[in-house]
Amino acid sequence: MEQTPTNIPGHLLTAIRERKPLIHHITNMVVMNDTANITLAIGALPVMAHAIEEVEEMVGLAGALVLNIGTLSPSQVEAMLRAGKQANAKGIPIILDPVGAGATRLRTETALRLLSELQIAVVRGNASEIGALIGVAGETRGVEAISVSGDPESIVRNAARELGSVVAITGVRDLVADATRLARVDNGHPLLATITGSGCMATSLIGAFLAVAPDPLEAAVGGLVAMGLAGEMAAPRSGGPGTFRSHLLDAIAALDEAAMNQGQKANFA
Amino acid sequence: MEQTPTNIPGHLLTAIRERKPLIHHITNMVVMNDTANITLAIGALPVMAHAIEEVEEMVGLAGALVLNIGTLSPSQVEAMLRAGKQANAKGIPIILDPVGAGATRLRTETALRLLSELQIAVVRGNASEIGALIGVAGETRGVEAISVSGDPESIVRNAARELGSVVAITGVRDLVADATRLARVDNGHPLLATITGSGCMATSLIGAFLAVAPDPLEAAVGGLVAMGLAGEMAAPRSGGPGTFRSHLLDAIAALDEAAMNQGQKANFA
Amino acid sequence: MEQTPTNIPGHLLTAIRERKPLIHHITNMVVMNDTANITLAIGALPVMAHAIEEVEEMVGLAGALVLNIGTLSPSQVEAMLRAGKQANAKGIPIILDPVGAGATRLRTETALRLLSELQIAVVRGNASEIGALIGVAGETRGVEAISVSGDPESIVRNAARELGSVVAITGVRDLVADATRLARVDNGHPLLATITGSGCMATSLIGAFLAVAPDPLEAAVGGLVAMGLAGEMAAPRSGGPGTFRSHLLDAIAALDEAAMNQGQKANFA
Repeated sequence: MEQTPTNIPGHLLTAIRERKPLIHHITNMVVMNDTANITLAIGALPVMAHAIEEVEEMVGLAGALVLNIGTLSPSQVEAMLRAGKQANAKGIPIILDPVGAGATRLRTETALRLLSELQIAVVRGNASEIGALIGVAGETRGVEAISVSGDPESIVRNAARELGSVVAITGVRDLVADATRLARVDNGHPLLATITGSGCMATSLIGAFLAVAPDPLEAAVGGLVAMGLAGEMAAPRSGGPGTFRSHLLDAIAALDEAAMNQGQKANFA
Repeated sequence: MEQTPTNIPGHLLTAIRERKPLIHHITNMVVMNDTANITLAIGALPVMAHAIEEVEEMVGLAGALVLNIGTLSPSQVEAMLRAGKQANAKGIPIILDPVGAGATRLRTETALRLLSELQIAVVRGNASEIGALIGVAGETRGVEAISVSGDPESIVRNAARELGSVVAITGVRDLVADATRLARVDNGHPLLATITGSGCMATSLIGAFLAVAPDPLEAAVGGLVAMGLAGEMAAPRSGGPGTFRSHLLDAIAALDEAAMNQGQKANFA
Repeated sequence: MEQTPTNIPGHLLTAIRERKPLIHHITNMVVMNDTANITLAIGALPVMAHAIEEVEEMVGLAGALVLNIGTLSPSQVEAMLRAGKQANAKGIPIILDPVGAGATRLRTETALRLLSELQIAVVRGNASEIGALIGVAGETRGVEAISVSGDPESIVRNAARELGSVVAITGVRDLVADATRLARVDNGHPLLATITGSGCMATSLIGAFLAVAPDPLEAAVGGLVAMGLAGEMAAPRSGGPGTFRSHLLDAIAALDEAAMNQGQKANFA
């Protein structure tokens, strides 16, 4: 399937705002507020629900399910599996954020277990997290990518093939791949790396795009263009990470189809 | 009891700032930071404590207890019941925020169980959450009211009678009722609906007013006037939801008795 | 050991930015986002990880361990003990924030248990929290110091001797003591007391300084000077607690060695 990048992201944003899909998050406690607010700002409706007693019912109402292992616990993993199986049964797309994979065995193994027991549409992480899922040597210091050996484009392509999902590696240049395609997104700003949870927020945005996009690679590109463009818009108004975080949400809310189409710096290999 | 709206909200704000009551929250993780900060900004002292081992002791120090089921779990419900029974025994008022009632059975049943086992002074929710508690058909998409059948003024009056509490339904127009009275609050701004947790923050404000107001209906009106007025003050300084959230806290802190009395748009049916 | 205050804080900030130490937090849910963001802003890398299954592995990667009992639960205490013992075995410094000690028995006893079973480099709290750990009468209303009997300089010196740690009491004037030394830090601004978690954020900053400073008293002074100076820089740009919180993070990120050395108001008794 040939795709011309110029027509990709914008119409999906309009679709999100028209349909207001519910994005069910089972996610980490550190950036739960930011991920809820950015989901609202892009035009979707967030719900954070993790109780084993309700996740299957809640996900049934959702347009996409976001699983983020940033502050995982065994009962949360159980909730993720239950919600994920129900999502798979109902054809609701899942996005996984393997926060901190490579830093501890629990995180790497949990991410791999979710990938093995569930059908995951998109996995988004930094280079060392994604590398850890396919056995590429690297260093994840806590939740931060310090280094990874090898070429990022090879890693993202290999990960997509091995994991059987669309894989997105975010960094200065974002890379998105499935088994056959590769996209690069050059939107963004260095201030995005100065706040906690910008990766998690990108994951939530992709979740919103997944709820309206038939093609998960296109959804990932859409979410990453939105995040990067908002960073570009917010940076000049900001005096540092604290004010940037506020302006970032303003910029997401101010994005529209025309701004997405004009500002996107996505290209396909 | 006749009440002239012009003398209601302002003096309560002054009382909160003089007495600095402790507001014990057992609440959701998504907006815990915002609800703590808004409680401080209105002049009260927040504490978030949910461990079963300490909630009875903590609530004994409090002027009001806020129960919010936004990210509930079975152990949290147990903590709510223990704290609530102790609050009832000591005459400490309770406010319940039934976040997401109607979206899942767990949420609807938990809210009803708390209402049945505890004496609740005020229940605050959106129209579909309150409707779900008295069997009115509606749609709660996650934690968002999508639709509710019937007239909101009838729903709030019926809910107040059936639940035996003051009930507040917030929306473009806020409605507050007890068994015999109805108040309408027209303060507010559309930006309040663009951030997550504005309802939860309103609940925390009502909690602060409850700690100093003998009449829970008056407390609910006071909290909703404060929230709406702060939204009106914050909106012109804001460029979107991110900056609005910061200016909203500034505006709550800047409110005083005179601003409350002059700006309030409350009237009683 | 004689120390001239003018050469204390600045070079440590430079060391943090060069080494980017991982600061492992087992901390409260209310201000987890703020403590992660302020750790990033000072130049270190935060990770929030509390699962019993991973805390020993995670702390092994860390330059310091922050334990904060603000929203404690029994399983969290177990995770703190496991991570703390591993940190002690590896020589990784620990800072304890006994949030709410004195308000409930659970909090006081948990803080004392951590102090008894672990070797803690620094304890930071407000006057009534620290007083509660050594049996000085006072009132902690929730997590706020209302009153404490006795002279703060005596309390901080006695606490340092009794607890066998560096102790920092923060307030209008911050006091830091070990068994023989006493430092006073007069940086700060009243707006710091209007936001939730400014104490917890100061604790995280001290954690970052601990990861690079051989002397825990010097680390505590460094963290408190950074926090106080950032408050002084942020206040004139702020219209209240909401905007202050954003500008505070900007100011921490903008601090450098020269600004620390010029602006510090630390002196040693």
